[in-house]
Amino acid sequence: MSALTRRAAIAAASLVIAAPAAAQTADPLPSWNAGPTKQAILTYVAKVTRPGPDFVPLQERVAVFDNDGTLWSEQPLYNQFAFVLDRVKQMVAKDPALRGKPTFAAVADGDMAAVAKLQDKDLLDMVAATQAGLTIEQHQALTTAWLKTARHPKFGKPYTALTYQPQLELLAYLRAAGFKTWIVSGGEVQFMRAFAQDAYGVPPEQVIGTSLKMKFDPGDGKANLTFVPALGSLDDGPGKPENIALQIGRAPLVAVGNSDGDQQMLEYSAASVRPSLQILVHHDDAAREFAYDRTSKMGKLEKALDEAARRGWTVVSIKTDWRTVFAQP
Amino acid sequence: MSALTRRAAIAAASLVIAAPAAAQTADPLPSWNAGPTKQAILTYVAKVTRPGPDFVPLQERVAVFDNDGTLWSEQPLYNQFAFVLDRVKQMVAKDPALRGKPTFAAVADGDMAAVAKLQDKDLLDMVAATQAGLTIEQHQALTTAWLKTARHPKFGKPYTALTYQPQLELLAYLRAAGFKTWIVSGGEVQFMRAFAQDAYGVPPEQVIGTSLKMKFDPGDGKANLTFVPALGSLDDGPGKPENIALQIGRAPLVAVGNSDGDQQMLEYSAASVRPSLQILVHHDDAAREFAYDRTSKMGKLEKALDEAARRGWTVVSIKTDWRTVFAQP
Repeated sequence: MSALTRRAAIAAASLVIAAPAAAQTADPLPSWNAGPTKQAILTYVAKVTRPGPDFVPLQERVAVFDNDGTLWSEQPLYNQFAFVLDRVKQMVAKDPALRGKPTFAAVADGDMAAVAKLQDKDLLDMVAATQAGLTIEQHQALTTAWLKTARHPKFGKPYTALTYQPQLELLAYLRAAGFKTWIVSGGEVQFMRAFAQDAYGVPPEQVIGTSLKMKFDPGDGKANLTFVPALGSLDDGPGKPENIALQIGRAPLVAVGNSDGDQQMLEYSAASVRPSLQILVHHDDAAREFAYDRTSKMGKLEKALDEAARRGWTVVSIKTDWRTVFAQP
Repeated sequence: MSALTRRAAIAAASLVIAAPAAAQTADPLPSWNAGPTKQAILTYVAKVTRPGPDFVPLQERVAVFDNDGTLWSEQPLYNQFAFVLDRVKQMVAKDPALRGKPTFAAVADGDMAAVAKLQDKDLLDMVAATQAGLTIEQHQALTTAWLKTARHPKFGKPYTALTYQPQLELLAYLRAAGFKTWIVSGGEVQFMRAFAQDAYGVPPEQVIGTSLKMKFDPGDGKANLTFVPALGSLDDGPGKPENIALQIGRAPLVAVGNSDGDQQMLEYSAASVRPSLQILVHHDDAAREFAYDRTSKMGKLEKALDEAARRGWTVVSIKTDWRTVFAQP
């Protein structure tokens, strides 16, 4: 090595070393207020990424996040519910025979009292009916178009502007620490894939969700893969760890949720032989977002909150722990 | 910038530029003989990675590979079949009541005439029976231990030494070109995940396969996720595109298989609006490996071979196109 290339190599190496040092001094979670919640996250990540008995190899660093109520708002309705109601209205306008279904007629007529009584099962039926016969690409195009024009009833903003800034920082912080970040949500999987990359930096293949069955038909050489109006898998409750096992193949070490439907995913994570971190977001900020838990229809948080207290899981108070709530443009 | 740091920056930059240039001159597929097959692969990858009308964005570069007969040998039995037969023998030795199942008794007695008559359905039943009640970790430990001691009946080597060297090079070449490489196989998914990273450089979460249902039981705080003896999804034929849609969410642009069970996966790929590449491995080398196609029980290749001829898919002749067959230690 000549003197020049040696000097170049040293200079290049020092640049490489300088970058992480700078990153360490900057706060990776600026929208999180100082306190035990933020400290629990920082302590956990430091513990598993530094050499020592708690070090976790790169390939085992898996973090899973619920979506509705964990990464974006889920009140007054799951956002996908709003999408599906709009789709039902469009479909009934085109084909009045669909009024034969009482739930469809109620939605088409804007009968909000009837809509308020719809159950998760009714939503699933509508998801199945509105997606049946479409390809993934057609369904994504409808989702993308809807997200551009639809506005949240309380905040008057696009739904994708109502993602949580502190969670975007947490996702980025975990990725920088070598974690592969996944969404594991009760929402329909292809709906979420239409925006997960742009909204969260999570690629489509790292989104797990409720799914419809699909049917493959090679047709005339133009292979067609379309949705069938039948449930493939409900990604909620015990369905979450089951689908994580199917698609990831190992227990997540970081699991973040906000409702009883996330409890089993957090339990699965907590049972890992590796150090793990369970986080529950508690919506307690009516002024800036919403306040709800034990009696809520959407995102009910009761059993998981009790278990969190018993097992020492990290509970995020939006009011106390989050400096800002929504994504900064 | 000082003269020294400027010199350092220039030297560092030239190092960065030098590396890809060297890579381009070296043959990325040294175990592939020159000819139309190798040229088709090189031409396709160059076309979609260079600026121009056929350029494909990074996130859409998805390549899927079947496993049995495509990445490693599948004769005289699928390797997983050999594993399951050994597991059945162990289980019957421990619990003679299992002889009540005629197929189990035949396997335990080494009745090879009866074993030769077993169908795919019987194999699936045995997979279900031998995995039921285990966790993924327990099943992986059994798989890993078996792979260490089991030997292929013809070649006398560990099964993982019988992966195909040209395919390892193709996987690496595609990854270097920005493709995410996946395994999409009829084999049981958690079996393949025990060795896919070491054997192929494919992480567990990029392995899709036939799956059993699983059951989640939080038990006494030690969450348990165990296999249930019931088929979740058969990843064969139309099941391949359906599972690709579920887990990846878009059509693969490169699809590599070797049997009629891969036909629909190749059709799905060929129907993409992007330039795509379909490859079928034809086992025509009895001297170095095996020769079989239209009448084979394992890996039957008939309809897909006819379709390949009609549609101009790339057919690999092991005899002609592969300089070496098995992985080089």
